[in-house]
Amino acid sequence: MAEQFADVYVHHDRLQRAQDELGRQGIDALVVGPSPDLFYLTGYPGHLSERMSLLVLPREGDPTYVVGRLEAPTLADRRDLLDVRAWEETERPADVVAGLVGAAGGTSVAVGDRVWSVFLLALQEAMPGARWVPATPVLRTLRMIKDGREIELMQEVARRTDEAWEEFVVRPIAGLTEREALDRLVGLTTARGLGPGFADCGSGPHSASPHHDSGDRVIRPGDAVVFDWGGTLEGYFSDVTRTVHVGEPDEEFRRVYDLVLRANQAALEAVRPGIPCEAIDLAARALIEEEGYGAAFIHRVGHGLGLDVHEEPYLVSGNTMPLQSGMVFSDEPGIYLDGRFGVRIEDAVLCTDTGGERLNEATRELTIVG
Amino acid sequence: MAEQFADVYVHHDRLQRAQDELGRQGIDALVVGPSPDLFYLTGYPGHLSERMSLLVLPREGDPTYVVGRLEAPTLADRRDLLDVRAWEETERPADVVAGLVGAAGGTSVAVGDRVWSVFLLALQEAMPGARWVPATPVLRTLRMIKDGREIELMQEVARRTDEAWEEFVVRPIAGLTEREALDRLVGLTTARGLGPGFADCGSGPHSASPHHDSGDRVIRPGDAVVFDWGGTLEGYFSDVTRTVHVGEPDEEFRRVYDLVLRANQAALEAVRPGIPCEAIDLAARALIEEEGYGAAFIHRVGHGLGLDVHEEPYLVSGNTMPLQSGMVFSDEPGIYLDGRFGVRIEDAVLCTDTGGERLNEATRELTIVG
Repeated sequence: MAEQFADVYVHHDRLQRAQDELGRQGIDALVVGPSPDLFYLTGYPGHLSERMSLLVLPREGDPTYVVGRLEAPTLADRRDLLDVRAWEETERPADVVAGLVGAAGGTSVAVGDRVWSVFLLALQEAMPGARWVPATPVLRTLRMIKDGREIELMQEVARRTDEAWEEFVVRPIAGLTEREALDRLVGLTTARGLGPGFADCGSGPHSASPHHDSGDRVIRPGDAVVFDWGGTLEGYFSDVTRTVHVGEPDEEFRRVYDLVLRANQAALEAVRPGIPCEAIDLAARALIEEEGYGAAFIHRVGHGLGLDVHEEPYLVSGNTMPLQSGMVFSDEPGIYLDGRFGVRIEDAVLCTDTGGERLNEATRELTIVG
Repeated sequence: MAEQFADVYVHHDRLQRAQDELGRQGIDALVVGPSPDLFYLTGYPGHLSERMSLLVLPREGDPTYVVGRLEAPTLADRRDLLDVRAWEETERPADVVAGLVGAAGGTSVAVGDRVWSVFLLALQEAMPGARWVPATPVLRTLRMIKDGREIELMQEVARRTDEAWEEFVVRPIAGLTEREALDRLVGLTTARGLGPGFADCGSGPHSASPHHDSGDRVIRPGDAVVFDWGGTLEGYFSDVTRTVHVGEPDEEFRRVYDLVLRANQAALEAVRPGIPCEAIDLAARALIEEEGYGAAFIHRVGHGLGLDVHEEPYLVSGNTMPLQSGMVFSDEPGIYLDGRFGVRIEDAVLCTDTGGERLNEATRELTIVG
């Protein structure tokens, strides 16, 4: 019972802080569908389907969950937190939302990033005078800064993912397909009690394509192999990348690996509250550019991590938002040499009052496998 | 090679037909993100993330896929079908889309249902003079009518799902939790080569909640147990529901089961081209209302089925769209007696020139299990 009370209290507080933020930003209401945003605010995961299902949070007053009658029973344990307005199969749910938001001209409504367009277009039709803005500037203020419980979960999910790697990497992978190797790594990860995440493996020339769809290529001696994967714990993601070499690498691979490792360390060392996001990217990029591989570092150095595997803050050139204590993000420089090989080394990093703290400690030293 | 040629040809034809439909509906362009819509049109599944990734199909001229540079390599085998415009991490992809669509005042753009609001809002900002409409009226015209190859796939995915049920239902389930029972059923389904689908189980009083989240309740003698699940084959879904009783049921359960079975049959018999969708719902509903259970049949009788588990056409009161040969949809009447038990029986049905043809033939007779 105590736990349930605490849980409702946490979500009540988050809803209140979202309302405060609406007030600060001069927005009248927030609508959010089934998504990590919803789970963060209410603890209710929701069910995403063609039936409109939206939390309506006015700047003042009680939150209401608008949901098809079929799904209303799944909100039974949220009744202390939310009013529930169940709509019938023959009703137009956008009209129900309009009634709650108030369709006055000039009403401004923040819309959750992942609300489907079919719902936003229906809301825009039902409230033709309203002004629609993305909810990110409201919600990132909350979600970017992890509280103590969230940090504990992210430390734990990272720790178990590291353990899976240490067990994985001592066995040979040559002769396995990319998919078989990934299946083994994911199996070791879920065996530690983690929920579904994501997983990608690129071997040989595939390692040079950061979003390679892993598949049937057989891993061979001479390959660089990039593993990028994560699992979840109570919704919170881990996200790690390690690159190994099958058999002895040549001189250039060693040089590139060492450079990426130093760039990963340079980004970590640049982390502290008040530093702009783009400065972390630059810390890694400057090093890589200096050694002539700038054109081969084709992505930002990192992204926020939490209930989403990619969320604010994004560590990318042009993002001047200052880091704050409690932010968690990836540190993942990479160098990709088309048709040859790629190297990426990624850890999750927590920004503390005194600097960056890695959540992942799986070995980053160059690992040669069979 | 022949197969690949056929594949490009199929998608080229679908893109052409979508353009024809844009012309008929007076819409200038279509934008569609990673979704079954995209897979249907191009064979490319896409990768849904915070990085904008959209097919831009003008009413005339070539389709372009707008994608972050990182993901561009995953389109390598679609280059015969699509131009690819890769954007850099520091570009604003909405501006890229605006440049392709043409930002002339009054331009009308159809937006895929599942495009995230964060992208639609960015497009609306980049093209302030444009008119935005849902893409469903364009795409359902194509997707609702299955071609020969699609029908073969849907027959096969249904057949294998039926087989899984027949193997599942001969073993006792009393003493298992809902989750354990589902795990077994899903295991038998994937063992037949089907990809991930969905699965739900409600036992005892839970069976009276159609969207019950299955879990830890232990299945007991005296329970009605509803299983609703499906798998996928090349993206196409099966969707079946069967209700069993653990041990001998009482008279009312038998009466309700028989009524739902007759309603399922009545809906099937009402199917033929030209009949409005709502008439199928009414055929089942009239029977259930006649016997006094109308208030307990709390959902529409069915939904279209294909690359989505719920898609057009929806068999619901108010939908006057006529059925056409080649449509596939669920036939799933249900009766839910709050706190006591529920019964639902669901098959996929194909509308042919001469009437409805069930794709599922797993036994519908009342089955008593241990």
